[in-house]
Amino acid sequence: MDMDAAEQDFSRALVDEGWWLASGIAGLYGWTHAFESLVQSVDRLANAFAAQDGAQPVHFPPVLNREVLVRSGYMQSFPDLCGSVHSFRGSDAEHQALMAAMEAGEDWGPHLAQTAVALTPAVCYPLYPTLAGTLGRDEVVFSLSSYVFRHEPSQDPARLQAFRMRENVCLGSADAVRSWRQAWMDRAQGLLAALGLSVSLAVANDPFFGRGGRMLRANQRQDEGKFEIVCPICSTAHPTAIASFNYHQDKFGVAFGIRQRNGEVAHSACIGFGLERCALAILRTHGLDRARWPAIVRRQLEA
Amino acid sequence: MDMDAAEQDFSRALVDEGWWLASGIAGLYGWTHAFESLVQSVDRLANAFAAQDGAQPVHFPPVLNREVLVRSGYMQSFPDLCGSVHSFRGSDAEHQALMAAMEAGEDWGPHLAQTAVALTPAVCYPLYPTLAGTLGRDEVVFSLSSYVFRHEPSQDPARLQAFRMRENVCLGSADAVRSWRQAWMDRAQGLLAALGLSVSLAVANDPFFGRGGRMLRANQRQDEGKFEIVCPICSTAHPTAIASFNYHQDKFGVAFGIRQRNGEVAHSACIGFGLERCALAILRTHGLDRARWPAIVRRQLEA
Repeated sequence: MDMDAAEQDFSRALVDEGWWLASGIAGLYGWTHAFESLVQSVDRLANAFAAQDGAQPVHFPPVLNREVLVRSGYMQSFPDLCGSVHSFRGSDAEHQALMAAMEAGEDWGPHLAQTAVALTPAVCYPLYPTLAGTLGRDEVVFSLSSYVFRHEPSQDPARLQAFRMRENVCLGSADAVRSWRQAWMDRAQGLLAALGLSVSLAVANDPFFGRGGRMLRANQRQDEGKFEIVCPICSTAHPTAIASFNYHQDKFGVAFGIRQRNGEVAHSACIGFGLERCALAILRTHGLDRARWPAIVRRQLEA
Repeated sequence: MDMDAAEQDFSRALVDEGWWLASGIAGLYGWTHAFESLVQSVDRLANAFAAQDGAQPVHFPPVLNREVLVRSGYMQSFPDLCGSVHSFRGSDAEHQALMAAMEAGEDWGPHLAQTAVALTPAVCYPLYPTLAGTLGRDEVVFSLSSYVFRHEPSQDPARLQAFRMRENVCLGSADAVRSWRQAWMDRAQGLLAALGLSVSLAVANDPFFGRGGRMLRANQRQDEGKFEIVCPICSTAHPTAIASFNYHQDKFGVAFGIRQRNGEVAHSACIGFGLERCALAILRTHGLDRARWPAIVRRQLEA
């Protein structure tokens, strides 16, 4: 069976067997209580480690100040994945034109205007602007989770347009954040292996946009800027990233004016679990009938 | 002190005293662990009643199929509040034009194209299309919560652009959903009064758009289509709606092809708690120092 057929079969099974609800849009689903409970269990497990780090919990809505996309370089690297929010600002007459375009089945996007907000592309983005200034300690760690948006409609059930990540973020010196990231790579592999998942570590290969993107991709691989834990979901030949470990160097420190206590620009790293992807890896590995999962996996998830 | 000054003072106090994080955008904030815990407590209380109804929990991301905004009539009634999601779909050359517009501080919205998704305007909207067909029982009830978006930038801390609602939705005959809504109006007033809030019930006055909107507003008042529980937050003269009780008649049944078991079009009602607004009402009523709240209120929230 080729990959596309495997993806469609798994998506259909998730809907038919009571895990997902179809929306009519590729990569956009609702979740039944069974799936949502599994996602919450994964989040609880992933977040249990955060307490060991003394991570400070913080929470953001799924939209952010549009300027963060510009200043962080996101619109340079991933413009095709962004979600800019547009609304209607016109008069009564312009509203009639909007409604007429809609009824005629025409493109009604041009009747709207860009607002000051955009969908959050990665959980940690809204955090950095709140840290402008000097860090309160040599090393600070945050834990946060929210919905993120990536405009990449796909039949692959593991490539959603709207999904959640649990992230931990560390800021401080280059050495401190690098060794923090290394510790997380070790414990995350242990955590996911304990769920019976067949995981391995790989250097990431992000889809930077366009001709300039090829160079950014080569740099990312050469610098080992981002690692991923991958696990087979729809294909063993092309396993899916279910967790990532990203060392940003001083990119966000420079972009948002964040300094270490010694006055140097802060370095940062973030680690993230794709919550729906982890849940899918469990369903793909152990099957869609929860009663038949290994007892040890069920116990882990109920802990 | 006038209302605008009261709003700005309260917003500033929420940030200064460790409840909110500013984003640089009016009506868009992050939440500290203290505020998030309070929101979760309110949600737990509001959701405790759902079990009595045998409500089925269901979960949706904060974006939905754009067509739901069209078919539900939202773009007719509230176009100025909508959040349509736009992304970049162009070539390398068009990307350079986008980046140039951005660097020049020009409007870069026209470089993007409308996608198939929009921000969810009310928690229950993504539910209706999943119910197309005939209801499984005479009366079905769902419980759901998510972030919603309203494009109405404001200095009023109780008028956010991104916020959460806990909703319960009932579908069935007109009589069944009307008496279900009445029962919720009674218990919601009891629940909120038990938190020490000074609440009252009012007929709602939604901001329907434009000249045509005046008639829709008059109809809504005359039909008693929507009630709200209001509570003073920034003004006692203009209390804020913190919960709402909306009888849709057969509007969603017709729009999404939902039928009762006897073949008639289903009627529906939804009741919702504005989670951040309930939290703000508690902070405004009992103060920003949790240690000084009445013991009975703290016990309710910890239950």
